[in-house]
Parts: sequence; C-alpha cells; structure tokens
Amino acid sequence: MAAQGLDALIGMSPENVAYTIGFLVPSHPVNRHRRTISVVTADGRSVLIVVSVEAPLARERSAIRDVRAYDQFKDAPMRVLADCIAELGLERGRLGLELDYMPAGDYLQLSSTLTGAEFVPSRELFLAARMIKNEVEIDRLRRIARITDAAEAAAVERFQVGMTEKQLAAVITDAVLSNGGDAVRSNIGSGPRSGIVNPKPADRAIVQGDVVRIEILATLENHQSNVTRTAVVGEPTSEQARIWNVLMEAREEALKLLAPGTPAKLLWQAYASHCRSKGLEPTLSFLGHGIGLTGHEEPYLTADTEIILQPGTVLTYEPFFMVPGEMGFHIEDMFLVTDGGYELMSDVTTNESLIRLA
Amino acid sequence: MAAQGLDALIGMSPENVAYTIGFLVPSHPVNRHRRTISVVTADGRSVLIVVSVEAPLARERSAIRDVRAYDQFKDAPMRVLADCIAELGLERGRLGLELDYMPAGDYLQLSSTLTGAEFVPSRELFLAARMIKNEVEIDRLRRIARITDAAEAAAVERFQVGMTEKQLAAVITDAVLSNGGDAVRSNIGSGPRSGIVNPKPADRAIVQGDVVRIEILATLENHQSNVTRTAVVGEPTSEQARIWNVLMEAREEALKLLAPGTPAKLLWQAYASHCRSKGLEPTLSFLGHGIGLTGHEEPYLTADTEIILQPGTVLTYEPFFMVPGEMGFHIEDMFLVTDGGYELMSDVTTNESLIRLA
Repeated sequence: MAAQGLDALIGMSPENVAYTIGFLVPSHPVNRHRRTISVVTADGRSVLIVVSVEAPLARERSAIRDVRAYDQFKDAPMRVLADCIAELGLERGRLGLELDYMPAGDYLQLSSTLTGAEFVPSRELFLAARMIKNEVEIDRLRRIARITDAAEAAAVERFQVGMTEKQLAAVITDAVLSNGGDAVRSNIGSGPRSGIVNPKPADRAIVQGDVVRIEILATLENHQSNVTRTAVVGEPTSEQARIWNVLMEAREEALKLLAPGTPAKLLWQAYASHCRSKGLEPTLSFLGHGIGLTGHEEPYLTADTEIILQPGTVLTYEPFFMVPGEMGFHIEDMFLVTDGGYELMSDVTTNESLIRLA
Repeated sequence: MAAQGLDALIGMSPENVAYTIGFLVPSHPVNRHRRTISVVTADGRSVLIVVSVEAPLARERSAIRDVRAYDQFKDAPMRVLADCIAELGLERGRLGLELDYMPAGDYLQLSSTLTGAEFVPSRELFLAARMIKNEVEIDRLRRIARITDAAEAAAVERFQVGMTEKQLAAVITDAVLSNGGDAVRSNIGSGPRSGIVNPKPADRAIVQGDVVRIEILATLENHQSNVTRTAVVGEPTSEQARIWNVLMEAREEALKLLAPGTPAKLLWQAYASHCRSKGLEPTLSFLGHGIGLTGHEEPYLTADTEIILQPGTVLTYEPFFMVPGEMGFHIEDMFLVTDGGYELMSDVTTNESLIRLA
C-alpha cells in the first residue's frame, strides 16, 4: 500500500476479502447480491461491511473487529461504504479498488458520491501479496494437497469396471471429507470425455479400454487444491504410453528449473520445447498456475509471464495433451518453491506410468 | 428487449450467459479471469465470446453458433467485444449490460472504446425473464428438487449417533450423485452450530440431544435446488416442539395464499404475523426466494417485494428461527406456482414434526 501511496485498500472479491479478514463469509462466493467489503487504511484502521444475516458469524470469526451490517433489501452497500470512507476521513483519499471484480454499477455509484477521491486498481497489489504464502497458508495447502492426492488413491483403489463417473465422484467426496477436507468438486472424463478440458462427472459408465482423467479440486480452510491423475482401464496402447512418457519427460525438464530466481516463463519453455521436439503440441498455453485462496492465480506459467520465482510460491504443474473428443492425458501436482528448490506437496500417489485401473 | 428499446443484450454472469446459450461454460463460475460473454441483437443475431480452452465444448453445446475464442493471456475480452459490436453495426446502439456483475474495469475499457454507444443496466430484464420458468426448466427443477429431498431422506436413514457433520455431507453427496444430480453442497449445523445461518459441515460429531439442520443445495443441468430439514437426536424438548409448531403453522398460513395474482409481500406478511403473534421474530427478513439458474433470485418474499405471483414461478419457503449459537430451526421446500395454486416440488419427505434421529 505504501509503495502505491494508497490511503485505503478496499476488498470486494471472496478471495481478497478472505485474505484480508482471515475468514470467508459463507454466502459471499455464492450470492453476488450480498456484497461483502473490507476496508483497511494505511494507518491500520479497518472495517468490514457485511449483509446482516452473516453479521453474527463475521463478528465471531473475522480478524476485523469493526463489523457493520446492512439490510440486503433496504440498504445500498455503496452508501454504507461511502459513509464509512467519510467517517475515516478519506473522502479525498487515494483508494485501492478491485476494478477487475467490483461491479460497474457499484463503481458508478461510489464514484458519483465520493467525487473527491482518487480510485486506483488494486488487482496487481492483491495478486502479488497473495503469491507469496506464509507458514499458515503453506500448512493448509500442504494438508489439502495430501488429502486430495489420497482421494486420488482412493478413487483408483475403489474403482470397478462399470462404475459411472458420478459414482467415482462420490467416492472422491467421501475420501476428501473423511480425511478432513472441507469441500470438494471434481472433473472426471472417461473414454471420449477424457478429451474435454473441464469434464463435469456424468452418468457415463466407465468401461474397458477407457482413458480416465480424474481432476480433484478440494478446499481446506478456504485454501484450494488441484491434483489430477490419468489412468487406463486395462492396458494402455503403445500410442497412449508414448504420449504419457513425453509428458513426464517434459515435466522433468521443467522441474529441473523449479527454484527461486527462475523466471516463470523458462518453466513453460522447458516443458513446451520438449513436447514439441516429440511432436506434441501442449493443449494448454500454460504449464501450471499459482494456487491458494483461488484455484488459479499468479504465477501462471506461460511463455510470457514476467515473474521471477520466490520462496513461498505455491503452484501447480499440469502437463496436458488432448485429442479432442477422443482422449486426454493430464497430470497435475502442487509444488512449493523453497529456499533450495521445491517441495512436492501432493506426494501420496505417483503417476509416472499411466495408472492401470482393474 | 423491445420494451426497453435495446439493440443488443450482453450477458456476462454465469447465470445470464447460461440462460442465453442454454449451457454453462465449465470454468465460467470458478475463474473470473476467464470472461464469457453472450451478445444477442434485437434482430436475432448472436455471438458467444469464450476463452480458447473452453471453445471446443462451447461450440458443441451452446445454442449460439457463432463462437469466438480469445487467448486468456494475450487478448483483452473487451477488445474482442468492442470489435464484435462494431461488426454487428451497433457502435451507436443502445446496449444492455449487466452493470451489477460486469467488472468496473471492463466497463471503463468498453465505454472508452464504444464512445457512441448508450449503456443500459439489464439486471431487471434478466431477472424478470428468468422468474417465469418454461417447461424444460420446470422439469429440471422438479427432478432436482425430488433428488435433493430424497438425499434428505437418505441422510436421516443412514444417520448414526457419533457421525460427524462431514460424514453426513458425504452421505448426501453420494445420494444426490447416485440419483442423477450433477453436483451438491450442503450446510449442516448440529448442536450449537445449528444456530449459525450458513454452517459449513465441520468435523463435529453429532450427539444425543443435538438439533441438526441439514440444508442441501444441488444442481441438475445448471438448475439449483434448495431443501432443508431439521431433526433432533432423541426427543425434542417441549420448547423445541413449540417453536417448530409455530413455524409450521406460519408456513401453512403463507401456503393458503400461494397462487397466481398474490402479491409476494402478502406471503411474508402471513408468515411473519403468525410467528410474531406467537412471540417468535423470524430470523430472516424473507420467507423464501425464487430459484432457478441461481440459488437465490426473484421473487424474494420480503415485506416490501413489489411482485405479483405468476404461473411458472418457482420459489422456496424457508421458515427459520434461530437462537444464535444455541440452536436453529429451519425447513425449506420448493414450490411451483401453477394456474390453480401451487405444486410442492420437493415432495419426498415431510418434516411436520421435528424429525427424530436414532
């Protein structure tokens, strides 16, 4: 905030309010008409504005003690926010706003009320702060990464030919919740559906010869995981085994560079150039992405990312090659950048060869 | 659109794009950096703008045939949208925009490019259109309501003293998915946690004497359900039974009025005045809410809602009384307003008395 000369930083998205107050208001991510707003001033004062039905829990759990409730049907949250800014003496202040999230209507209302204030986009500030995780965040991410990987193992172990993708999703949910995760969703694509980027689990029965892509996205104390495994029911064909080997070699090339000081784009380069040298064009234009309070955040590992890795960064690698509508191969793990290199956070299963499902 | 003199209606939120194209782009609701935009003109032309990784599925599933892909890392979606508007010959048109969703930064970019266009908020237009469901939507809502209610029955049947809230959530997930639902989350609060408005399932073991609130929110083909049951482990106290009876009587009063032509606020009035006559102040300031592509939509049943019920409206009733941090009582069902009155859509279980858990 100091570097940008901000007098106050105003959070409105679920992830950035949660980052600010250490708590996610339950209906914030699911009901966009219930605005939740955090205000933190450069001199250390803070206010949380929340819909009245969520106020009791917010008062109990938020790191911000000054919680102001508004009535969802009678009050305009931007009116409450403008009054709060005035009370803090910042009507002529320089205010950081999430212009990449804040609804345009709210912005038009607020800027027509606080006519003397200066508004500054705060996207980069939040992303940069959230990119380097502290010990509490690393602990949560490590735990949910392991729980998620254990759920992959449970899916493999409890798989039976003829099960539907949705039944496999239920096995995964059970495994995540019974191991301490808070919530979970999965993308499961079997057979031709493995050739869809984000396949929602369907009623399709999984049969002999299918490629099965199992991506799990779970949550622990609002921190996200993202782990993916690919399996074949029966024996992989030589073409399938070849594709998998290329992805694993390409990942290995990119892992050699995973350490503080490495420009993120070199990771993409190592991965993509190996794939291309073997005749595979990567399906995604990134090798992986940061993860934390959201499933996708900085650093994205693309050809053009201008970020140098630092210790405390948590990211995924997700080599992915798809023959659209036919089959798809995808492995995703979570890594912590450490002082000396990296730590594999999702460390329960391996997928060095395509997993064989019974 | 004609009534508002719009030349084009531009959708950007997951629910309104899904409403427009009959399909939900998988990463749209979970990754806000991947904008998905629908454009429909008054003369019937239409374009869908989507991130490149989702383009193959969108081309296969969207009702809009003209799908334009952009690169998440290289293209500015507002640039693509502005070009599209120009190509449609509407640079000086009257354009409906979701100002209650569209990020302010996008709005500032678009309005500085399309300097000759007029922008009109489209929130009310979308909400009014979505409030009256067609047969396809009613069928989906009816099916997911029954599946959800059956999952409530499964939770009651498979409950055992000592189970944790999360274990109960896993039972519910299994029941929803194995009965054909696509996805599910639940709020489960037991004992003192039943006195939280939206309790995320926790590791708390459920014990003798607990009040248990089980709210299930499931999805079928992007249509949402919301069904809640309240139970007691063992025998309810006379105070608990009394509170429940008041809620059920109040619901009955409000059900007598549930028919086309009734002003929505009379439903609230019938409910709230009965509760108050028995000394209970309702915990929520609404009796229920519309439901469809989102869990909460119009009509909200508040004291001030200026909406007259029409056939085809789907809504919930959710009588709710909470002693904060001590115990909470909550029942929620889904109703369809029919020509002659209403249909109970979540019709598997009953909760006329507090459910007894073994």
